[in-house]
Amino acid sequence: MTKVKSKKFKKAIVLLSGGIDSTTTLYLAKRQGYKCYALIFDYGQRHKREIRSAVAVAKGVKVLYKIMKIKLPWKGSSLLDRSKKLPKSRSLKNMAKEIPSTYVPSRNTIFLSFALSYAEAIQARAIFIGANARDFSGYPDCRPAYYKAFKKVVRLGTRKKDIKIFTPLIHLKKSEIIKLGLKLGAPLEKTWSCYAGGKKPCGVCDSCRIRERAFKESRG
Amino acid sequence: MTKVKSKKFKKAIVLLSGGIDSTTTLYLAKRQGYKCYALIFDYGQRHKREIRSAVAVAKGVKVLYKIMKIKLPWKGSSLLDRSKKLPKSRSLKNMAKEIPSTYVPSRNTIFLSFALSYAEAIQARAIFIGANARDFSGYPDCRPAYYKAFKKVVRLGTRKKDIKIFTPLIHLKKSEIIKLGLKLGAPLEKTWSCYAGGKKPCGVCDSCRIRERAFKESRG
Repeated sequence: MTKVKSKKFKKAIVLLSGGIDSTTTLYLAKRQGYKCYALIFDYGQRHKREIRSAVAVAKGVKVLYKIMKIKLPWKGSSLLDRSKKLPKSRSLKNMAKEIPSTYVPSRNTIFLSFALSYAEAIQARAIFIGANARDFSGYPDCRPAYYKAFKKVVRLGTRKKDIKIFTPLIHLKKSEIIKLGLKLGAPLEKTWSCYAGGKKPCGVCDSCRIRERAFKESRG
Repeated sequence: MTKVKSKKFKKAIVLLSGGIDSTTTLYLAKRQGYKCYALIFDYGQRHKREIRSAVAVAKGVKVLYKIMKIKLPWKGSSLLDRSKKLPKSRSLKNMAKEIPSTYVPSRNTIFLSFALSYAEAIQARAIFIGANARDFSGYPDCRPAYYKAFKKVVRLGTRKKDIKIFTPLIHLKKSEIIKLGLKLGAPLEKTWSCYAGGKKPCGVCDSCRIRERAFKESRG
């Protein structure tokens, strides 16, 4: 009985960007019985629109959420700097082989470090992040080896040591993530992928094109 | 000739809190020929006074500095929460054996992740942090094994992979750090250690007592 109770109340921090992957991850964490705390970042991204999606998703599934506002004055990414052009028409096949200008220096390390702080503070047992190393833009901080290294930082640099980092989607194809999301009842229609920062998806940035292909495949 | 030039302009991010350790570390990095960029955090610490010291130190030695403002709404530390009491009269001998309430969840992981982002953005080759695992308050994120783990995160999670993390003071006694700082010409009189948040050092918090003993020893 005690065990069931404690399971019922196990807490998890879920990094929520408002895209397909993090939304599916949130639904997965909930399905696994976690009480979820969504962590959303307002980090000066040109596609600020995704924050609205993240909030809509969190509210829809009735989880607590926090929006962390951080500023990276050094920018260093076309995703933070509107004067730079976004890459377009990159080959979907070779996308993972080079790091594009949309890479935000150490973004996931920053996000994870805040999630870790939050987890320690509220005694959460887990952090979920929807990183994906298959249909992705080639960012180094999306690869399994990076997460393995970060797990060691968690074990050695925290008070409790036993906070788990889960990357449940890391090896899935994007179309498989969509299928999983839909199966879990995730409102993928509320999600936002486009990097461009317009009111409608641009259809040509990496993120739009990965999304479009994946939806096609998931129907096939 | 080219080599000398490139050495002359090698850049480093130095985490600067305004205390003895980070000030000495900044002077050490400069002595080693780095062009230093000081990174100062305004993270809601009760001893906000240390930021003034950090700025004074940076200005005094004419290095560029940035103050990053971050908020940890979950607090989780007596260093962030003025309604909590600071520990006092802890045994200096046993201090490193337990983690006190002043521990800020994952603080150094957050600081390092920002430093890493900054380093990537400006193509700095190194990050210096004045962590110390000898005369310290027992924080897990001050120990050598933690930094070893973080170095792996750097290698696997960044674009360039070759940013070095230096912790030059990690094995020194506090009194040795003071001697080193003075030898390097660091203005230790400008530094601030007290946690309490008053206008004058309280004299009883861990940080005041470590400082006081170290100054005594360094004269001995």
